[in-house]
Amino acid sequence: MASLPIAGGRFIILGGGSLVGAATAEHFLAAGAAEVRLLDNFSMGAEGAVAHLRGDPRLSIIRGDVMRMSDLLAAMQGMDGALLLAAYMTLNMDRDPWGGLDVNIRGVQNALEAAAVRGLRKVVFASSNAVYGYGPGIRGELAESTPFHSEGAPPAAILYGATKIIGEQLCRSYTRKRGLAHVTLRYSTVYGERQHHRAANALYIIETLERLARGEPPEIFGDGSETKHFVYVGDLARANRCAFESAASDVAVNCSGPAPITTRELVALITELAGGGPPPRFVGEEPGKLRLTSGGAFRIAHEKAFAAIGWKPEVEMREGLTRLIRWLREEQRT
Amino acid sequence: MASLPIAGGRFIILGGGSLVGAATAEHFLAAGAAEVRLLDNFSMGAEGAVAHLRGDPRLSIIRGDVMRMSDLLAAMQGMDGALLLAAYMTLNMDRDPWGGLDVNIRGVQNALEAAAVRGLRKVVFASSNAVYGYGPGIRGELAESTPFHSEGAPPAAILYGATKIIGEQLCRSYTRKRGLAHVTLRYSTVYGERQHHRAANALYIIETLERLARGEPPEIFGDGSETKHFVYVGDLARANRCAFESAASDVAVNCSGPAPITTRELVALITELAGGGPPPRFVGEEPGKLRLTSGGAFRIAHEKAFAAIGWKPEVEMREGLTRLIRWLREEQRT
Repeated sequence: MASLPIAGGRFIILGGGSLVGAATAEHFLAAGAAEVRLLDNFSMGAEGAVAHLRGDPRLSIIRGDVMRMSDLLAAMQGMDGALLLAAYMTLNMDRDPWGGLDVNIRGVQNALEAAAVRGLRKVVFASSNAVYGYGPGIRGELAESTPFHSEGAPPAAILYGATKIIGEQLCRSYTRKRGLAHVTLRYSTVYGERQHHRAANALYIIETLERLARGEPPEIFGDGSETKHFVYVGDLARANRCAFESAASDVAVNCSGPAPITTRELVALITELAGGGPPPRFVGEEPGKLRLTSGGAFRIAHEKAFAAIGWKPEVEMREGLTRLIRWLREEQRT
Repeated sequence: MASLPIAGGRFIILGGGSLVGAATAEHFLAAGAAEVRLLDNFSMGAEGAVAHLRGDPRLSIIRGDVMRMSDLLAAMQGMDGALLLAAYMTLNMDRDPWGGLDVNIRGVQNALEAAAVRGLRKVVFASSNAVYGYGPGIRGELAESTPFHSEGAPPAAILYGATKIIGEQLCRSYTRKRGLAHVTLRYSTVYGERQHHRAANALYIIETLERLARGEPPEIFGDGSETKHFVYVGDLARANRCAFESAASDVAVNCSGPAPITTRELVALITELAGGGPPPRFVGEEPGKLRLTSGGAFRIAHEKAFAAIGWKPEVEMREGLTRLIRWLREEQRT
């Protein structure tokens, strides 16, 4: 069976210096993992994200690159499971499509090949709801069978989504041809403690908090009816655990938060939790700014995840945002 | 304007040793091109496809690889337009996904970068109706806004389609960021003189002809109601010309034949044109054989191509198959 318990297991997280990597490492250590290795090239400046974990002797941090097979073959020795997070997201893909296509495609091939050669028992691949695309086709319930919509979307967003589609298929191929078990999790937009500025959608939360902190009114693009469907980072750490521990393999499931939210509701909630502030300013499109749009209200369905790996989201946005704001304030004090 | 006349122009065809490459070179030379360069690594054994063109002093054949920037920078010097054909299709992608992802993605980046650096006036990118995917979602009219369906399709077919989506977006990026004009043509399944055995769908035609030549009954998978929508290679050569000559840029259009056909009709037509033969044998799925399926009858709409570049298909399957059969028989005599 493809079940791989966290307790007593040895795990490597590729792209471990990320928001999800740090939370997952913490979660896996708390769940009794024998060893957790974080591999990251730290090119995106994320060393701070894992600084708080350095005290645990079971944790090691390896400066390495998914583009170098030698790094991966060395780092995967003795491991049971690998979590594949290393990736360029849309904003970085726009700035550097050569690097982004390398890391998101060849990096995944390298990781799967190393995992197969080193005899790992299971791989969890971090995909994205970007595999459904953007633009007018995105509306209603987005289940796992939703096709990829690219009409009307910016090139970098389509490139990002297409690389995630390719990553998923590479996982399927390694399961079929090499017997390497895998689960693909299609994360929705992640937010939570150790939030950074690298994600096009989550940027909205952090920018609103920053504007409020400066006493400026939050900005809403358009009329504020636009849907976002976030997921709290701690829920994703648990989803990664469920993916390893469940017997499931060769399956792709959505991981989204309890419910979607409109940008208007989001800004109101953030303003309330931040202790109040001026009312939002409705602004037009900012020229040159990469924006990810939909065709109407949508919800990223996560029911299949519960059926396949026994996971469902637990943290509501009110609670998750409260934790994020608390963390931000503690950061600013230190 | 982005219009680039063939007469007097200098063109390079990447992947020039292909079915479409050979037909396009012939067409461009006949249309008065000042120079046609064919670049190919001939890894797919296609040197025979261009042997008949070697007499024309305006034609040169360069053994080169789209994975080597130095080859491309040298070969594109002095060129006005580039046709990007070099690619792995689904069958080869299945056998060698590392090579296929390299050529179909990095190869396109290399070609676009070299074209931008060398100041080419226009690029025509050979995409595919594989950007609409396969499986139950493929039915009815497939216009250019159709999303990418991957549910239920084999990994290699999804990989191939995703690389074509990426190639198209790389073209859009180079037009936006570097001012390099481009037209994307989404070819449907190509058939015609110099047909090879490398395309999953077109294989059906050649295998049927080979079975009939051996006196064996043609085989039909399933009940024969499955739709195919082919396009004659000479029509594509003309589509490539229209794409260069039209003022259009930054547009993607379908290039399909006059009408779709069911596999039952196709086998009947081939049998008739081949001079008769035993009735077809209906067989089940062949295990391990990669097959590309749809959810029902479909038609790949080509009306947008007429609006954007003034092209529509002219050669009916009866005529195109007649030419293919004539060519095959001449080949066998020599």
